[in-house]
Amino acid sequence: MIEIDDPADPRLDDFRDLSTADRRPDRPGGRGLVIAEGVVVVERLLASPYPVRALLGVRRRVEALGDLPAPAYVTSAEVMAEVVGFHLNRGVLAAADRAPQPDLAALVASSRRLAVLEGVGDHENLGSLFRNAAALGVDGVLLGPGCSDPLYRRSVRVSMGHVLRVPFASVPDLPGGLDLLRRNGFTVAALTPRADAVGLADAGLRGRRVAVMLGSEGPGLTEGAIAAADVAVRIPMAGGVDSLNVATAAAIAFYAIA
Amino acid sequence: MIEIDDPADPRLDDFRDLSTADRRPDRPGGRGLVIAEGVVVVERLLASPYPVRALLGVRRRVEALGDLPAPAYVTSAEVMAEVVGFHLNRGVLAAADRAPQPDLAALVASSRRLAVLEGVGDHENLGSLFRNAAALGVDGVLLGPGCSDPLYRRSVRVSMGHVLRVPFASVPDLPGGLDLLRRNGFTVAALTPRADAVGLADAGLRGRRVAVMLGSEGPGLTEGAIAAADVAVRIPMAGGVDSLNVATAAAIAFYAIA
Repeated sequence: MIEIDDPADPRLDDFRDLSTADRRPDRPGGRGLVIAEGVVVVERLLASPYPVRALLGVRRRVEALGDLPAPAYVTSAEVMAEVVGFHLNRGVLAAADRAPQPDLAALVASSRRLAVLEGVGDHENLGSLFRNAAALGVDGVLLGPGCSDPLYRRSVRVSMGHVLRVPFASVPDLPGGLDLLRRNGFTVAALTPRADAVGLADAGLRGRRVAVMLGSEGPGLTEGAIAAADVAVRIPMAGGVDSLNVATAAAIAFYAIA
Repeated sequence: MIEIDDPADPRLDDFRDLSTADRRPDRPGGRGLVIAEGVVVVERLLASPYPVRALLGVRRRVEALGDLPAPAYVTSAEVMAEVVGFHLNRGVLAAADRAPQPDLAALVASSRRLAVLEGVGDHENLGSLFRNAAALGVDGVLLGPGCSDPLYRRSVRVSMGHVLRVPFASVPDLPGGLDLLRRNGFTVAALTPRADAVGLADAGLRGRRVAVMLGSEGPGLTEGAIAAADVAVRIPMAGGVDSLNVATAAAIAFYAIA
């Protein structure tokens, strides 16, 4: 634990201006760091394969974490707020480098239940979906075209750190990438509110190797993705209600196939 | 439609300083107005029993609403932001007075599926829960001790306006209030992560009159509430994951009893 009082100290650069300087590698100037906020999420980061670079927090929060694999900078809430750029009521942060994600083929081969996402670009929805996947026993998440980065800071936070536990891999080609799933014995179930889809409970998915395919909250899955699935399934909805949030719909589907 | 250019115009007072001057009647100075934001939610307000007092928006959004039962003040996005106190990207607001909620006994008697909440104080969780209740055919929500006001602005927004459609009533006494449910033939199912609870799918709830009782995300239901239920049910969870968000857990339970 290293005490720091100067918010300009370069050792704190990993944590600087978090709200404006996004860390995604696809943003100009971004460095692709993974940022964890709060004791629970930092603990999940510490238990993950992501190599932790540094921690920053108030003494009480840092001490709650036990043994640490990286330097922990201890300061006041005021200095933290100045470094980070906003007031953090969680009191501790950790920064890590990215770790290689599993190979797509290996992830598919080792999984029994998967989520396949198309166009899920909202960071909060994506984070919530990973939390639900972790809670409900989904083995991995495949990210199709139009999905955002699950390691974006807000996704990490909303997922309660479960983006660091649930493996994910990109599937640049959808629906072409579904062939890999079928070769591994998966039934691909497209979740859609369409009236001609089969009720989720009536599709005979329980106990099988299932990949649930989900689209973004507004437009949903593309026609091509639905057509390429083995079955289109729907959650029975009450009249007049357009749709559930995508992470909530995913949770119901994950429950139904568990 | 009435054009207004002056942000200080007193006809806009219903919409003033929304982020700081909360409108709940339990706040000092609050007037208990219901505020709807965005075309979709404003449309649900217009279709609800809540008496609309006024609308405020940019011309394009107001025109999208069709016939209106109250004056619509049309102005620029800049004047709107000045009145409201922050930039609104939804472009239209409506303010309504509260309407009487249904009598508890009448709501219970006329319902087949209910949610009973204890200590759900987070406005976003409460709003999401109403959205899920509406989508999944829950007839009403009973608000036990420690619940927040579903008509708080953020809850209205997160619910997509469904707090204006799904009836709710207060149950000041829990678990005492469960007697009313049982006299009406309801099975009261307490949702809890406890290991000795029955799996949700194995509790025989489908097709019965069921009230799902849910607690707040952190502490969950009190021991007294769980003990007073007819059955304690759990959502099977993967190891190492503490719990789902309460609105998500509710959605799974609503799906399971539908």
